[in-house]
Amino acid sequence: MLSTTERTTPRKGERARTARDDLYAVLDAGMICHLGVVTDGGPMVVPTGYGRIGDTLYLHGSTAARSLRAGGDVCVTVTHLDGVVLARSAFHHSVNYRSAMIYGEPRVVTDPQERLDGLRALTEQLAPGQWAVVRQPTRKELAATVVLALSLAEASVKVRTGPPVDDEEDYALPVWAGVLPVRQAFGDPEPDPRLSPDLPVPQHVLRRSPE
Amino acid sequence: MLSTTERTTPRKGERARTARDDLYAVLDAGMICHLGVVTDGGPMVVPTGYGRIGDTLYLHGSTAARSLRAGGDVCVTVTHLDGVVLARSAFHHSVNYRSAMIYGEPRVVTDPQERLDGLRALTEQLAPGQWAVVRQPTRKELAATVVLALSLAEASVKVRTGPPVDDEEDYALPVWAGVLPVRQAFGDPEPDPRLSPDLPVPQHVLRRSPE
Repeated sequence: MLSTTERTTPRKGERARTARDDLYAVLDAGMICHLGVVTDGGPMVVPTGYGRIGDTLYLHGSTAARSLRAGGDVCVTVTHLDGVVLARSAFHHSVNYRSAMIYGEPRVVTDPQERLDGLRALTEQLAPGQWAVVRQPTRKELAATVVLALSLAEASVKVRTGPPVDDEEDYALPVWAGVLPVRQAFGDPEPDPRLSPDLPVPQHVLRRSPE
Repeated sequence: MLSTTERTTPRKGERARTARDDLYAVLDAGMICHLGVVTDGGPMVVPTGYGRIGDTLYLHGSTAARSLRAGGDVCVTVTHLDGVVLARSAFHHSVNYRSAMIYGEPRVVTDPQERLDGLRALTEQLAPGQWAVVRQPTRKELAATVVLALSLAEASVKVRTGPPVDDEEDYALPVWAGVLPVRQAFGDPEPDPRLSPDLPVPQHVLRRSPE
């Protein structure tokens, strides 16, 4: 079960999901999150990568990044836009989506093994299969990187699916209504211009491309 | 030109865009933003719709929404993920993206005409062509809706394109490198099950679907 603190209890109860597996599913399907922090100058929302191991979300960034130096609680949101919901009235237009929000104060990871595990999770979230084939981080690269761990203890998930919900009297209007699905798709891999031509696209990359 | 306040000056200067048209292009290509606010309980990042008229961004929501009642400065971020950048080293993995961040304190729109204009911009951003064909908002619906206006005066745009940038000595490694493009695509329109079968999918919806 997910938490039931005030900030994780959605107003529209019918869209809330409460199983921990729903949270994992939304997170595992994403590539970037939006990280919200409070800086001296107010709120700041930064798109960034993430990775998950069990009930911990890992974030990383340069030691110079403003967003990672802010301290205090953060809110991490992962959103998948699944469709545009076209209703018969302007008011009932909506989107189908899956989103997860996680609240908490991240911990700076100092243990060398956990730092590496977190970075592997981050790389694999974005590019599954890459960690095993690429050059591993050097001591210098690791020193320039902050790894943060955020517990998934306080989180909420919202999902909207299905057709528009119009006012009963509007169903008679001669207005087309329904859902225009939206999905994220991969294109054909584009080799680095400096790539040796005898290096084929690896299977783990090809598998994500169109057939 | 975009602003050059501290919070709108990216650390990595090479990714910054400074023309106002770059800002418009990122905003106009999107369907949802992530709205960051500071509540009593800390930061909160909510996916939500938006619309743009000139140098004003419009947001809306229920009068009951926590995120709209927070007050103070907000940060609105719109992000397009354009590709996964696969490098020869774990450290240089990245994403190609376009993102815009807007900072400021939104104004609650009270003028009836501006409220309608803002709601039209919101609907048209999500579903171009819909406003003209759907039932317009009633007085009751308008009373239940907060419309906020956020000036685009303080904004920044960041864009990453192109192949990975690896360390010079890593180019000799036998590791495939390049970009896996990511794009948002529309599927075939799914009619509302309660739709009269003699209502065809309108052209403005069909045009966004695959051919």
